[in-house]
Amino acid sequence: MKQIFTVKGMTCGHCEKAVSKAVQALDAQARIVIDRTEQRVEIDTVVERQALVQAIEDEGYSVLA
Amino acid sequence: MKQIFTVKGMTCGHCEKAVSKAVQALDAQARIVIDRTEQRVEIDTVVERQALVQAIEDEGYSVLA
Repeated sequence: MKQIFTVKGMTCGHCEKAVSKAVQALDAQARIVIDRTEQRVEIDTVVERQALVQAIEDEGYSVLA
Repeated sequence: MKQIFTVKGMTCGHCEKAVSKAVQALDAQARIVIDRTEQRVEIDTVVERQALVQAIEDEGYSVLA
């Protein structure tokens, strides 16, 4: 299921990688597309939304509701 | 020998880590202090300046002369 998130604080490619890794730790099969200039993270996964939000926030980024 | 560099493009903690790792790859004993808001990198090492500049630039950051 494709889920869209608005994520604040991703300033560089390392941040994108950190977010991707955090998601992939929950679901290695997840498909992730990030556009950091748009603060946009698109994740195609079976993992539920709240768990994804938690994983991204644990990396130090804010997910807007 | 302590050397000071002005480095542009370090936007987050991951960037600081990338710069640190690049320097430590040249000298595992190097002491590195980074203040990214000041674009300041202080490196205490025996490695010569030009090699440090090269390593930092290879990570994708600009070192000001």
